[in-house]
Amino acid sequence: MSTRLSQLFVRTLREDPVDAEVASHRLLVRAGYIRRQAPGVFAWLPLGLKVRRKIEAIIRDELEAFGAQEVLFPGLLPREPYEVTNRWTEYGDGIFRLKDRKGADYLLAPTHEEVFTLLVKDLYSSYKDLPLSLYQIQDKYRDEARPRAGLLRGREFTMKDSYSFDYTDAGLDASYQQHRDAYERIFTRLGLDYVIVKADAGAMGGSRSEEFLHPTPVGEDTFVRSAGGYAANVEAFTTAVPEPRSFDGLTPAEVLDTPDTPTIAALVDVANGKHPRPDGRAWTAADTLKNIVLALTALDGTRELVVVGIPGDRDIDLKRAEVAFAPADVEAANEGDFAKHPGLVKGYIGPWSPSGAVLGAAQTGEPARSTTGIRFLLDPRVSEGTGWITGANVHGQHVFGLVAGRDFHSDGIIEVGSVVAGDPAPDGSGPVELARGMEIGHVFQLGRKYADALGLKVLDENGKLVTVTMGSYGIGVTRILAVIAESNNDGKGLIWPKNVAPFDVHVAVAGKDVAVMAIGETIVDSLEESGFDVLFDDRPKVSPGVKFGDAELLGVPLIVIVGRDAAEGTVELWNRRTGDRTSVAMIELGAALAAQP
Amino acid sequence: MSTRLSQLFVRTLREDPVDAEVASHRLLVRAGYIRRQAPGVFAWLPLGLKVRRKIEAIIRDELEAFGAQEVLFPGLLPREPYEVTNRWTEYGDGIFRLKDRKGADYLLAPTHEEVFTLLVKDLYSSYKDLPLSLYQIQDKYRDEARPRAGLLRGREFTMKDSYSFDYTDAGLDASYQQHRDAYERIFTRLGLDYVIVKADAGAMGGSRSEEFLHPTPVGEDTFVRSAGGYAANVEAFTTAVPEPRSFDGLTPAEVLDTPDTPTIAALVDVANGKHPRPDGRAWTAADTLKNIVLALTALDGTRELVVVGIPGDRDIDLKRAEVAFAPADVEAANEGDFAKHPGLVKGYIGPWSPSGAVLGAAQTGEPARSTTGIRFLLDPRVSEGTGWITGANVHGQHVFGLVAGRDFHSDGIIEVGSVVAGDPAPDGSGPVELARGMEIGHVFQLGRKYADALGLKVLDENGKLVTVTMGSYGIGVTRILAVIAESNNDGKGLIWPKNVAPFDVHVAVAGKDVAVMAIGETIVDSLEESGFDVLFDDRPKVSPGVKFGDAELLGVPLIVIVGRDAAEGTVELWNRRTGDRTSVAMIELGAALAAQP
Repeated sequence: MSTRLSQLFVRTLREDPVDAEVASHRLLVRAGYIRRQAPGVFAWLPLGLKVRRKIEAIIRDELEAFGAQEVLFPGLLPREPYEVTNRWTEYGDGIFRLKDRKGADYLLAPTHEEVFTLLVKDLYSSYKDLPLSLYQIQDKYRDEARPRAGLLRGREFTMKDSYSFDYTDAGLDASYQQHRDAYERIFTRLGLDYVIVKADAGAMGGSRSEEFLHPTPVGEDTFVRSAGGYAANVEAFTTAVPEPRSFDGLTPAEVLDTPDTPTIAALVDVANGKHPRPDGRAWTAADTLKNIVLALTALDGTRELVVVGIPGDRDIDLKRAEVAFAPADVEAANEGDFAKHPGLVKGYIGPWSPSGAVLGAAQTGEPARSTTGIRFLLDPRVSEGTGWITGANVHGQHVFGLVAGRDFHSDGIIEVGSVVAGDPAPDGSGPVELARGMEIGHVFQLGRKYADALGLKVLDENGKLVTVTMGSYGIGVTRILAVIAESNNDGKGLIWPKNVAPFDVHVAVAGKDVAVMAIGETIVDSLEESGFDVLFDDRPKVSPGVKFGDAELLGVPLIVIVGRDAAEGTVELWNRRTGDRTSVAMIELGAALAAQP
Repeated sequence: MSTRLSQLFVRTLREDPVDAEVASHRLLVRAGYIRRQAPGVFAWLPLGLKVRRKIEAIIRDELEAFGAQEVLFPGLLPREPYEVTNRWTEYGDGIFRLKDRKGADYLLAPTHEEVFTLLVKDLYSSYKDLPLSLYQIQDKYRDEARPRAGLLRGREFTMKDSYSFDYTDAGLDASYQQHRDAYERIFTRLGLDYVIVKADAGAMGGSRSEEFLHPTPVGEDTFVRSAGGYAANVEAFTTAVPEPRSFDGLTPAEVLDTPDTPTIAALVDVANGKHPRPDGRAWTAADTLKNIVLALTALDGTRELVVVGIPGDRDIDLKRAEVAFAPADVEAANEGDFAKHPGLVKGYIGPWSPSGAVLGAAQTGEPARSTTGIRFLLDPRVSEGTGWITGANVHGQHVFGLVAGRDFHSDGIIEVGSVVAGDPAPDGSGPVELARGMEIGHVFQLGRKYADALGLKVLDENGKLVTVTMGSYGIGVTRILAVIAESNNDGKGLIWPKNVAPFDVHVAVAGKDVAVMAIGETIVDSLEESGFDVLFDDRPKVSPGVKFGDAELLGVPLIVIVGRDAAEGTVELWNRRTGDRTSVAMIELGAALAAQP
């Protein structure tokens, strides 16, 4: 049975919704696929639901193919399991919490590791039951601070989340690979280009972690890749660490006057003007060590300062810093922080001063604290034996030739520096380039974290209790729909890939001629009989212009226009993806449609 | 591809769950269909999900057949629309409320009338767009005070809820009928007996309302039916009201001593002993008027007393009272209430006393309040011209021959009396019998209540704005699954109706013989090729007894046992519904299975 546009619950809109910043949001609302209910919360109209079901069917198909089994958890979950793993607290403001009439605490689950772990613990007890892969397609909730971009960052969204259970590391590797392979097949069937990038384990706490990113200039994630095959999320990129250098032949550090140099640019100018390098090469920002004071707020509210030392030609990447310091919140130190630490001379901060160590361990091997007691972390490029121009903690003075490992020491290494094109990939596969993408999937080895916390153990072949090792694998179903829309549209409307289009063919009758309408009916019947799912624009009083505009907006990739030539047995076939519009004899229409790219 | 029990995520349990009071709860948990997560909140295991999807598919099929269109609303909804219709308040403790990080109020939707109304208002504006029927299959939340009986009364559950939109009353009638007809087809396909009963409109506020009840002795709802075809929920039953009688020839009321008669039984005894009826017939409880003091608590917390006058041979049915006084809470008046009203003499309360009207309007047509000022409502049987023995508001005294409409007056009629077998149906179709059932569906004419409140109007044929009239239609998907389980089991386990069984056939290989297992594999392959969906118990080290027990518990209605005779080409076909176990030649197995009732 075909769907008639005159009956379909849809209303196309000429105007963009005022809050829509991205194409998918604009077009999905204008074409009547979704409708906003609250910030980041949408209702699904018939067209949207149809596309969504097709995406879900492809996901199910590929997961079932390797033996994953579907279950379904509630969205409303009790606090207790999340308390055990500390995520009740760690999620901070990011989740919705509520109480029932008896005052018991619940949350709207943002992800389900805990209850999957408990379910398997509840039912299984032997290695013979493993490996096991379970999944669900289910609504998730996150109380995003700034819900935006329509379905791309909502507060209620639908995910496919899978979890694998094994009792050996090799088993986990195999389950991980099964999911990874299935994801490749899923995205291929969905018509979505993807890059698999190394990802940071982040708050989930585990080992191997990769993201599937759809490369697009409007992507919200930045990733790097090298010609030699390295690919990583910027947050997961690691710097190639230089070998330590000998201190032999290095001159002693020297404090020099550098008036009015609170910025790196000013410092470089003054250094070149007043204190040129003995060998004549100009000083550059890369010769300076910039010391940035950050304030970390832990989950319990404790505020701690930390200083990061980084070459002056680089910035701190705040997203990388958020990951590195998670779950603490990171921000720049404020005046109040500086007031409490008069040892830090703003604009002239450095690890060393004429009166001794200001930051970091005082001496290697003896981590006696410095005069400020503030934790001091270094970019990996500030490696042993490298010399720097850096603040002398005296207003208007810097120290030149301060050597890492000889004159100052850190409390550790940290990866928070910005990544720039040309940086070497850590695996030696050459310089990286930066690109943007949208996350469409995530595969992740949780390891034994959740099983340990919640006591999921099985008896192994020798009758010994062993802790289960788990993987977690996610695809944002509603997010993917938006990503597909984002990458499959033109100025006029959506252009769905065949596998997820709400209909195979959109038949529009142009004109008000009753005879032509009757021919349209015949064509629709015949296409339906041939197995095409048809959307039939049968509206008798709507102009051809409006019909074509709606057809473009709605995005069915193949459009058949039944117009003046219909009486002569000819219709027009319009391929929205290629833009080709060709006359086709009605008798050949089915074959012509099937042959379209 | 068949499903192998050795791989299926399921664990059958020998013990009943401790909190399970009803068969469906016990069996669905023991057979591994569902698993408790919190009070009234369950996770769905693969078998449960499979049955659920079959139920959903039948519902979708029948709704789409008459043109209803599927949409999907979020579970998390903002307060505002529910504020407009006052349901945010009316739901009281019955819903889950929460705040987002900005302090905005949300609820987990218990039902979606408001947002459906707003969605149609948002997209449609003309009578040409109507009629329209929309539905969703979606998770609902209610913070039940006593979640119990597994899926039958949960806090998170899945409903199919539909809404119809028309601009004429006749249109609403037609949409209502379409849903009603579809529901009949759905329940028939689900193999569920049903009775359609008149239902009370209750808190939803509307006109025509019917429930589909599945008759079963363990049902939680009581309904009445007459041989002549009347059927109603007890809450919706109305009493056949007698014609007013003339006061001519009625003797005046007389106050008589009735010491120690605080109960109806004592009063009848004393009346017959001390004050026999002049014509010699014995007084019975039906001759007395019992006046029951109730306390109503309104949503805003205001407490009000009301006295209900009812023949002494009947009780107040608290469920009927809850419906009649909704949304106020109803309870018996307490000592504190009586203390505030010394005019009510406990055990001897009546509408009249020697010093004047105690309850109800003082005189007909002039509703000056009585001495207590308490609202006085009468059972319909206490009709004009009927005479009663009732309390005289003096300790140890009753008044005899107090005539309704002559000696006392009420503030209204109320239907809260218990209904008993033999009561006449209000439509004259004869005496009713009482039966028990489980609610499986509800069809309901909302009328213009929600459209009025939320401003849903369309232009009619004359270009005039008219308010839309709506219907609301619900089926509890997860509840129905439980009701089916409740009515389709024996002591050993579930016995699913064919249309919703998780598999068509359960094949169990009895014994550890490798050759027999190989024959089992062949049979399973051949059945799958013939289109049967097969669950294959391929567990090599499990005894036949355990396998048969599991087969019974899991509830696939047709079981094939591949045992000793398999080598001779014979297997056993076990029909769980009929209990028949017959030998069948393997070559005829497909046909034999297809022929099973």
